[in-house]
Amino acid sequence: KNINNLIRYIKRGSRKHLAKAITLVESTLKKDQMAAENLLEKLKPNDNTIRIGITGVPGVGKSTFIESMGLKLIEKGFKVAVLAIDPSSKRTGGSILGDKTRMERLSVNMNAFIRPTPNDGHLGGVAKKTGETILCLEEFGFNIIFVETMGVGQAETAVYDMVDIFIVLLLPSGGDELQGIKKGIIEIADLIIVNKADNELKKSAEKTRLDYRNALQIIGRSRANEIADVLMCSSLHSIGFEEIWDNVKKFIEKRKINERFYQTRDSQMLKRMWNIISHKTNEYIDKDLSIKPFVRKIIDEIKNNNLSIYRASKIIFQYISKKSIDI
Amino acid sequence: KNINNLIRYIKRGSRKHLAKAITLVESTLKKDQMAAENLLEKLKPNDNTIRIGITGVPGVGKSTFIESMGLKLIEKGFKVAVLAIDPSSKRTGGSILGDKTRMERLSVNMNAFIRPTPNDGHLGGVAKKTGETILCLEEFGFNIIFVETMGVGQAETAVYDMVDIFIVLLLPSGGDELQGIKKGIIEIADLIIVNKADNELKKSAEKTRLDYRNALQIIGRSRANEIADVLMCSSLHSIGFEEIWDNVKKFIEKRKINERFYQTRDSQMLKRMWNIISHKTNEYIDKDLSIKPFVRKIIDEIKNNNLSIYRASKIIFQYISKKSIDI
Repeated sequence: KNINNLIRYIKRGSRKHLAKAITLVESTLKKDQMAAENLLEKLKPNDNTIRIGITGVPGVGKSTFIESMGLKLIEKGFKVAVLAIDPSSKRTGGSILGDKTRMERLSVNMNAFIRPTPNDGHLGGVAKKTGETILCLEEFGFNIIFVETMGVGQAETAVYDMVDIFIVLLLPSGGDELQGIKKGIIEIADLIIVNKADNELKKSAEKTRLDYRNALQIIGRSRANEIADVLMCSSLHSIGFEEIWDNVKKFIEKRKINERFYQTRDSQMLKRMWNIISHKTNEYIDKDLSIKPFVRKIIDEIKNNNLSIYRASKIIFQYISKKSIDI
Repeated sequence: KNINNLIRYIKRGSRKHLAKAITLVESTLKKDQMAAENLLEKLKPNDNTIRIGITGVPGVGKSTFIESMGLKLIEKGFKVAVLAIDPSSKRTGGSILGDKTRMERLSVNMNAFIRPTPNDGHLGGVAKKTGETILCLEEFGFNIIFVETMGVGQAETAVYDMVDIFIVLLLPSGGDELQGIKKGIIEIADLIIVNKADNELKKSAEKTRLDYRNALQIIGRSRANEIADVLMCSSLHSIGFEEIWDNVKKFIEKRKINERFYQTRDSQMLKRMWNIISHKTNEYIDKDLSIKPFVRKIIDEIKNNNLSIYRASKIIFQYISKKSIDI
């Protein structure tokens, strides 16, 4: 039907149809969501792509970094997509990439695709949609997917759970104190990069690099079971990106050889499945279960102080679980 | 059995047994949780208590405020309990009231009870435990329950949902800009109080009061369907508390006359019940459902790329919901 057509056009490289697919995935309309599910059921996971998470505090230069690295990768023949997540920007109504001009050169490149993740405030929803958008992008043929996040909120672990390598960008701080970045983020980094290592900041970048290298000896290992490396780059002057790319490639290769790459993708996928089931079930409880006659009766009993909510939750939960257990 | 004994001792006023009950409620051990459920099933809600939510940024003087107001209320013959919630303090490992000395005089009063809510980081869990602790305190005979929160995190709406009146404390800022308090908090306030209205800050407190009174004309109404009042006090010199108490009493009385007090308590209680059911169900999905043979088979199919997680979630969800629908 329509969905099969949509997939065919996407495979042929129609950006218009790719955009349409992503719009379906992002939509909150019931009708669109059903179409999106139909679409997603037909997409096969692709192990030949690399999903790269990028985080760092505002001002660290995430956009310039992604633009420089993205252009480098396009030169090498890759197709690059960029997704940006920022659940915390709800109040301004804007997204990180609201002004696309922030990646001026990348955004006009025919082998690149940039998309801010729409912001409905609910982190679980944002993460789900981003995961699904990645599948659409991979179906289209993008083989490097950047997922950008702010480094200060709660989206980081969600992004960590949807990428193959998680990169933390740092500023050359000069000091040894942790930069405003959220605690715990450094610990899960697969690779750390000190950005803006140019001109008068070069020296201080060196120092930051050294400080973090030392700190990482203590605080542990990345997903590849090695101490996360700390590199430097200048996004402005496109310096350091060969080394970064080498590092990313080696990280992925190593994890493909020991199969951890595939295991992680599988477990990420299953985690997403359980989240979807949880979400559906909660919706079912909210919308269908709460209007059932026997539940209405229970609620009346509670209001009349004949039944505690604790006893009532046991009864209602039994209704949900027992029927399923009997099979 | 034991639980009936526990309840009897609590009713008789044994603080030791009250503490034991709260420890059960707060425990994460399966055994304790079952005992806690048994206990909670037997407690009857009590409409003669007043649950007061207090929020405000660090430094606004929440502890001093609660101490001054608490002592005033004890003078009037009430029994006062204080619970403090701070899910954000996880990283320091301490609680707001970690040093009890912050309410020195109140904490030694035999008609007062102060307890920080233990911090497992998970807001839903903290809120649930606080709600349950309130029930234990009311059973013991405390009739004024303060629930204190930081005013900067995400606990505010959770607290709003468990109290009868929600008070926001402000500093005399002198300016008209909103104080670091989280957006949206002022809008849900039932009563706003400018603290530290003493000595050289008196004038600036007056100005803050006026600014907020004007602002509230625009941004709306409290739960009593009236413009929230803005009062001033000096917690340090115990000035302004008669007026505050009058205001609280009137707020509660008005809402009892139009029945909204009882309706809100009912809906708060039911909301808590649905949260418990949701929680139980998610646990059931996590622990029981995921190890069932048919689910294991589905997971194998996913890993072999024969089944998408979207189709699989539909199948598993149907298993959860359909059986229940058929009855």
